[in-house]
Amino acid sequence: MRDIAAAADLSAANLYHYFDGKNALLYYCQDRALDRMLASVESARRTSPSAAERLRAVFTGHLQTLLDEIEGASAHLQIDSLPPALRAAIVKKRDRYEHGLRRIIVEGIAAGELVDMDPAIAARAMLGAMNWTVTWFRPEGRESATAVGDVISRFLVRGIAARTPATRRALSVVKS
Amino acid sequence: MRDIAAAADLSAANLYHYFDGKNALLYYCQDRALDRMLASVESARRTSPSAAERLRAVFTGHLQTLLDEIEGASAHLQIDSLPPALRAAIVKKRDRYEHGLRRIIVEGIAAGELVDMDPAIAARAMLGAMNWTVTWFRPEGRESATAVGDVISRFLVRGIAARTPATRRALSVVKS
Repeated sequence: MRDIAAAADLSAANLYHYFDGKNALLYYCQDRALDRMLASVESARRTSPSAAERLRAVFTGHLQTLLDEIEGASAHLQIDSLPPALRAAIVKKRDRYEHGLRRIIVEGIAAGELVDMDPAIAARAMLGAMNWTVTWFRPEGRESATAVGDVISRFLVRGIAARTPATRRALSVVKS
Repeated sequence: MRDIAAAADLSAANLYHYFDGKNALLYYCQDRALDRMLASVESARRTSPSAAERLRAVFTGHLQTLLDEIEGASAHLQIDSLPPALRAAIVKKRDRYEHGLRRIIVEGIAAGELVDMDPAIAARAMLGAMNWTVTWFRPEGRESATAVGDVISRFLVRGIAARTPATRRALSVVKS
């Protein structure tokens, strides 16, 4: 809590004024991260023409949320530290997000744009590759958050995309 | 500790007789898991004819180690619970393993069998997708460890493999 106050240039007392203890802050970070991730699923479904491009937009949004705000990032994963009521609310929202990602996969398989692969397992492999960045990414390291996000997004899209013109278009957006 | 003793059909006193406390047991689980993973990198480099097949063998070995022995699996990731000296030994071995995986990637890119992608970031995306399974896989769940391992291995190989005859052969080993 003291570290967070220092990072936010607030006194710890001040931070406690806004957030009712560590749990409320943890909840706030996780809830806000999930809101951003859900918004990027919605926006991808509305605006991206192909499944590969939708996935790419969701991955980029997820990794930006995690890596651009590294102080909130690990909070996104500390779900078991929350008291039961707050934890349940986060789990529910996280399930909605995972379900949104899975729906993009299911629709993409049905359209022949993605290869036929268990959508639940594929979605969790994608989430794992992304969430794991929190254990090793350092903002002061060799690679920028954007570079890491580009490589991982490209890798994950390739993992499931059938080789169609739309896929090639989605992948060519990323530097090759 | 009591849970582990129950799972191993030993009394806790008996277990403490073999392992000098929780740390020694945690260390043992992590060390043994890494030995198996290192062995599968070595064996893949010796026996698999293509980069895609090498990667596939390493992924299968990693996921088997994690998922077949779910009680030891999460131990593999609880590295920060270890006292400094034991932790340093595990980190060193884990780095060796990651280095081995990265070498397969670098060689595969040089041979034109894998697409050109930052090998360090790609390796960590792969490790993340695999290690994350520990947070959600349940042995009593809908999917077997083997099914989960097959889907994730195929997904991860596709993520980086160029479309060559060797890749198609490596992927066709996995049920499509």
